Amino acid sequence: MIQHPNFSTKEWSIFEEIFQPDILAQTESIFALSNGHIGLRGNLDEGEPHGLPGSYLNSVYEQYPIPYGESAYGNPEAGQTIINVTNGKLIRLTVEDEPFDIRYGTIHSHTRELDLRNGILNRRVHWTSPAGQTIKVTSTRLVSFSQRAIAAICYEVEPIDMPMRFVLQSELVANEELLPQSKDPRSSRGIATKLLSEEHQAQETRGLLIHRTSTSGLRIGAGMDHTIEGPSSMKIDADSSPDIARMTVTAQVKPGEKIRLVKFIAYGWSSLRSRPAIHDQVIAALSAALMTGWNGLLSEQRSYLDTFWSQADVELEGDPQIQQAVRFALFHVLQASARAERRPIPAKGLTGPGYDGHTFWDTEIFVLPVLTLTNPSAVADALYWRYSILEQAKERAQQIGLQGAAFPWRTIAGEECSGYWPASVAAFHINADIAYAVVHYIGATGDLEFEEKIGLPLLIETARLWYSLGYEDNAGHFRIDGVTGPDEYSALVDNNSYTNLMAQLNLRSAAEVASRHAQAAKQLQVHDEEIANWLRAAERMFLPYDAERKITPQDETFLEHEIWDFEQTREDQYPLFLHFHYAHLYRKQVVKQADLVLAMQLFSDAFSAEQKARNFEYYEALTVRDSSLSASTQAVLAAEVGQLQLAYDYLGEAAFMDLYNLEHNTQDGLHMASLAGSWTALVEGLGGLRWQDGSLSFMPRLPEKITSLAFRLLFKKCRIRVEIRDTEATYSLLEGESIKVLHHGEEIVLSSDAPITRSIPSINARPKPIQPARREPLRRNPGKMPMQQKSGPLYDKQSVESIDKEGIVPTID
Amino acid sequence: MIQHPNFSTKEWSIFEEIFQPDILAQTESIFALSNGHIGLRGNLDEGEPHGLPGSYLNSVYEQYPIPYGESAYGNPEAGQTIINVTNGKLIRLTVEDEPFDIRYGTIHSHTRELDLRNGILNRRVHWTSPAGQTIKVTSTRLVSFSQRAIAAICYEVEPIDMPMRFVLQSELVANEELLPQSKDPRSSRGIATKLLSEEHQAQETRGLLIHRTSTSGLRIGAGMDHTIEGPSSMKIDADSSPDIARMTVTAQVKPGEKIRLVKFIAYGWSSLRSRPAIHDQVIAALSAALMTGWNGLLSEQRSYLDTFWSQADVELEGDPQIQQAVRFALFHVLQASARAERRPIPAKGLTGPGYDGHTFWDTEIFVLPVLTLTNPSAVADALYWRYSILEQAKERAQQIGLQGAAFPWRTIAGEECSGYWPASVAAFHINADIAYAVVHYIGATGDLEFEEKIGLPLLIETARLWYSLGYEDNAGHFRIDGVTGPDEYSALVDNNSYTNLMAQLNLRSAAEVASRHAQAAKQLQVHDEEIANWLRAAERMFLPYDAERKITPQDETFLEHEIWDFEQTREDQYPLFLHFHYAHLYRKQVVKQADLVLAMQLFSDAFSAEQKARNFEYYEALTVRDSSLSASTQAVLAAEVGQLQLAYDYLGEAAFMDLYNLEHNTQDGLHMASLAGSWTALVEGLGGLRWQDGSLSFMPRLPEKITSLAFRLLFKKCRIRVEIRDTEATYSLLEGESIKVLHHGEEIVLSSDAPITRSIPSINARPKPIQPARREPLRRNPGKMPMQQKSGPLYDKQSVESIDKEGIVPTID
Repeated sequence: MIQHPNFSTKEWSIFEEIFQPDILAQTESIFALSNGHIGLRGNLDEGEPHGLPGSYLNSVYEQYPIPYGESAYGNPEAGQTIINVTNGKLIRLTVEDEPFDIRYGTIHSHTRELDLRNGILNRRVHWTSPAGQTIKVTSTRLVSFSQRAIAAICYEVEPIDMPMRFVLQSELVANEELLPQSKDPRSSRGIATKLLSEEHQAQETRGLLIHRTSTSGLRIGAGMDHTIEGPSSMKIDADSSPDIARMTVTAQVKPGEKIRLVKFIAYGWSSLRSRPAIHDQVIAALSAALMTGWNGLLSEQRSYLDTFWSQADVELEGDPQIQQAVRFALFHVLQASARAERRPIPAKGLTGPGYDGHTFWDTEIFVLPVLTLTNPSAVADALYWRYSILEQAKERAQQIGLQGAAFPWRTIAGEECSGYWPASVAAFHINADIAYAVVHYIGATGDLEFEEKIGLPLLIETARLWYSLGYEDNAGHFRIDGVTGPDEYSALVDNNSYTNLMAQLNLRSAAEVASRHAQAAKQLQVHDEEIANWLRAAERMFLPYDAERKITPQDETFLEHEIWDFEQTREDQYPLFLHFHYAHLYRKQVVKQADLVLAMQLFSDAFSAEQKARNFEYYEALTVRDSSLSASTQAVLAAEVGQLQLAYDYLGEAAFMDLYNLEHNTQDGLHMASLAGSWTALVEGLGGLRWQDGSLSFMPRLPEKITSLAFRLLFKKCRIRVEIRDTEATYSLLEGESIKVLHHGEEIVLSSDAPITRSIPSINARPKPIQPARREPLRRNPGKMPMQQKSGPLYDKQSVESIDKEGIVPTID
Repeated sequence: MIQHPNFSTKEWSIFEEIFQPDILAQTESIFALSNGHIGLRGNLDEGEPHGLPGSYLNSVYEQYPIPYGESAYGNPEAGQTIINVTNGKLIRLTVEDEPFDIRYGTIHSHTRELDLRNGILNRRVHWTSPAGQTIKVTSTRLVSFSQRAIAAICYEVEPIDMPMRFVLQSELVANEELLPQSKDPRSSRGIATKLLSEEHQAQETRGLLIHRTSTSGLRIGAGMDHTIEGPSSMKIDADSSPDIARMTVTAQVKPGEKIRLVKFIAYGWSSLRSRPAIHDQVIAALSAALMTGWNGLLSEQRSYLDTFWSQADVELEGDPQIQQAVRFALFHVLQASARAERRPIPAKGLTGPGYDGHTFWDTEIFVLPVLTLTNPSAVADALYWRYSILEQAKERAQQIGLQGAAFPWRTIAGEECSGYWPASVAAFHINADIAYAVVHYIGATGDLEFEEKIGLPLLIETARLWYSLGYEDNAGHFRIDGVTGPDEYSALVDNNSYTNLMAQLNLRSAAEVASRHAQAAKQLQVHDEEIANWLRAAERMFLPYDAERKITPQDETFLEHEIWDFEQTREDQYPLFLHFHYAHLYRKQVVKQADLVLAMQLFSDAFSAEQKARNFEYYEALTVRDSSLSASTQAVLAAEVGQLQLAYDYLGEAAFMDLYNLEHNTQDGLHMASLAGSWTALVEGLGGLRWQDGSLSFMPRLPEKITSLAFRLLFKKCRIRVEIRDTEATYSLLEGESIKVLHHGEEIVLSSDAPITRSIPSINARPKPIQPARREPLRRNPGKMPMQQKSGPLYDKQSVESIDKEGIVPTID
């Protein structure tokens, strides 16, 4: 997107100066609007051309049978996939006899801008139809943070030079056609879903459609109402059929006049409520929105975001692209979570159908840590969702022969939806990942009510899982065998270091919280002996170490395996999983994504500084980053061990994952974890943020290109600002009474008195680690755009060709 | 089957005294006739009732798409499944107005007998129709060993007491209906195949149908012709339609008269030949069979079997049931292989659709070793088939990133058909299993032409696979990581002992044979350096050993894993894979089937006697025998370590697998490997047969219940007979000049002079090893029938209920 020379780098927006039809699906993801409840892809108002039309409601899914080449006990039989619900965005325009379609006629200008402070998507078009009518169209779209069920569009069209007849058709459309299915396993399965009509109506400015899903038993209502300004002669009609509700405005408009249509869209859905109840719910939401009005919605939106940015903003000097990218990232992380309210935060948010709209472990390990320190109530909600599917997780544990709860690797509604168990069922760490998020949310907020009602049962049931999964061997080690860690290029290994450290935390935290809430724990059948067992298992947790090589193995036998032949692997053979069999990948030392390095990020105290440096160097040489869940982690550890240029490079990869479409699948939706990772790379990487004994600790250090970095955090009812410059860091308390933090190990107590400044000690870094051949991180030159991309062309090949055809030459630096 | 009190134990036949409709599918498998090219299940002549109608042609299959829950690189997309071809067995009889159907009327007697010496299935029925007509029907069926394309039935019907009108309809029927699909993953997928008609005709006594398969591109012809004797007034008609060719005989028959109809059935199929060519091929086969005549076919059949039994017979005293079972086993192993002629020997032979008609590794490791010493030309043919799919195996190796050839885990036509890679692709040992069969066939026959043309390329390409799959680590060990051994309750392990020993043999044998055929090897691009690499890898092959426990680990880390909780596992939870998730099974010490114990059988010299005893004891306690590929191996090692009662018990399990339906899936076809295993348990177990330095070595020892065991072997152009009694063994050379064998380590040279007798030394056995709770082998009392079955009821539950309903109480001893 912004890699195009026509894009501008703006601090507070993503601005597309020239319309690029070839990357439309990608920009639809980038320009998606969401509040965590409703998600609307950045499809054009008039519906066509489109990359992938998409309107989503959190947790509205369809079921499909999961097939297997060979059946086996315990394989999930039904999957869940996010579905494209009724499209409320559609506003078609006819200019005289000609549909407004930018594939025809002449575009004088076409800009789109995602405004990160106002939470709106602006579009301005200046266009002459094939028949010679020139018009200007302006639309502003929002999905309301303040009114969960509401989206709205302000659409204006005016004639230039001559009077002309406009027909506007504002619609709700169900059962839109989707593009054929991609073969990439990361995309959605695009099953042919069919929403079944239950009610349709349209009257005056209002329309409504109610549908239900075929197999998952959900009922969906979509409604619209409008306020319209225009010539007094304009005429308004309405009509509906089972899949369409339509309001039509017809007017003869003179130059200087315009039509201004504000469309209010409301959604409601339920698995329980009746058709009349859904009907009323939608109409009620519309009434509230109409009363608020367009300007009211705009101002509520701004106000919501002002609060967010006051808690979460990150400011940079020296690198405007990263500045833009990290705000873009935080905005989308907010969009995915703001009003999810006890529903999941999917891997792609509600920006596209990628990964079937499933939620995975990266929500807890990549997304929630950011929100924990910037918007913690969203974390409570996300973990409440985990709590709401605890019964399914307990049933699943029982089904696979374990105690406690086994959370699904991928799901929408709580049931395991994974069709390949070595990379899902075996990735038991998801359970400890949830526990990790619980522990840190509690640590950051001191939310004792949450701890007792939500945290306690989650910690207990996951601790029970670990205790039944592992066992104490004759040597007195608590071993956890046959699991898959974060690195998906290994599977079914014994004693994955990450998993064992996480399980240890999980067991200890469960014991601690159960002791703190003895009465509540007792009601969950926790007895002293069980707590003692957890503590003993945690104490004796087997943490492999290779004393000869002085390296922490990713898993017990990882270091014994052959090292992947990187020299012989061609650039076009990445990502490896699309070109090599798992039998090949699993038996070699090759790392898809940070695993032991992630363990070193999350358990900083479990490794000495020297050990971290050695391990980092070792795994750098093996890590190919075929996952978007790696660069940010590598950035964090690179910064810690003093590899600041490398940290800067990885920061860029994380930050530009979607803006530059580095994984070539942004069209299916944005990578929430990688977006969150750009914050992590900055705050935990360059800012050196860690948790230490319940406090926040900072070990800030900036790379050459970034002259200043400032970020804000919420922690224990305090709002903190940290500003880092070349040689010093300044800590301010923006809100709250006082708080202790650590600066490079030194304790500082912040109060409202005055900011505290400390100098940054130097670090003796080891030589720059090497990466696998052809997998070095992208090296950016922040003065120039776009950056050099090492793995594959900067544009998708097809995009380049399309652009070439149209005479626009992409600049690859 | 013969567990029923109404069955007799006969030395040379399987005799069913009373018809048991409830176990019909099982008896259809047991009474199946085959020559390796054609397979006819023991369906009743009149077609109904049936368990599972089945007529098969070796390698006639249909393709189906293999689905996946999640797609991944290198997963096979198309599977192959054996199909039920045109049924030529059908002879319907109408008695007056009443169809002859034993579900109606009164059965006075109904016997079936599989005659192992004559190679025929006899059936005699004495029946009174509901309308009161009493008849006798006799049918004798054969699938010709001497004329590969031919089956024949001699069908006689006579009236008792009164004259009556008979109508006989002898048919060819395509597209018979099959029963609904079973959920057991071991059964066939029963895809709805539809044969497409290309030609049908019927004229006088002859009929013919030609069809082709829908997707696999095969053309199938079936023809029939008849000779008919009966009253001179009888009338013969013929008619046909696309899926039926029919000859109808109508006659009024008086007591003392009868109708005798001999039906000759011929099959032909091809992927290349035209419809007219197939037509002529079928008619030509029929003409030859007609000229031979029924008596001629019978006599050719007897003569073929006389030769076989002279080479292969096993004689027992003291245990008539085992005597019967081992001849039954050898007969079916012969049937599966006799005329397979460069086509595969499937796991179920051609006795049923189980495992989709696929061929697996057990052909090479369980079936071919028996044939190598009893009917070696069938081994050459079976390995020629492997050679014929070498190109597909080379392509597959390349696809999964390896050198040489990667043979499919399961296939009919050569392409990998497995939909679950951890138990298929990763089970690389299949390649060394083929090499093992090659090496032993050559060793037993000295067939140098085979060695150069077939053996050499097979050995070279499999050696190349191993060399590319493993690697030499820094410690100088050649490691083979991430593989699955024979035990399917472990997967993706490092340095599976069985696999590494097999790979070592494969590498060494390739080097040896390539050196012996330097010119031919050169044409296959083998150079000295490659041979040196193979030898070095073999020399440095990592063979794990746990010096502390003094146990050979099944794989490098196997002994570190938690031992399965056998005490808590209920009897109804076996087989475990139908009740526990693989994630649960893989990470624990629990053995589905002999793995390290099989390695000790095949590589006797690689372990000291003491080590074998220790290992055997260790793995006995872990082995649950959820596979039919285990009991025979355990019998062999039990005998070797002096556990003779245990060897005897396991022998029984192997021998009665199908006759007693111990795995509850005999209805889908017989277990060829377990049948072969009954020979192995006797000859390699009690006979103590091993290969040692190119000679046969014997360490015979009999359990108490067996007073005498004699067996015959073909080896290096000699025919040997070994007879073992309590304290001594006698070795005779029946044919050939002279040969050296070993008796308990002592060298004996056999010549045609006179048998040599040697006494059997005693052995100090360790205490009887224990098995997992509730998984002790069945203990038989050979004087009484049937034996006690420990795992599940003796009958399938359903069968017992059916029998009870009919007032026949099964005896469970």
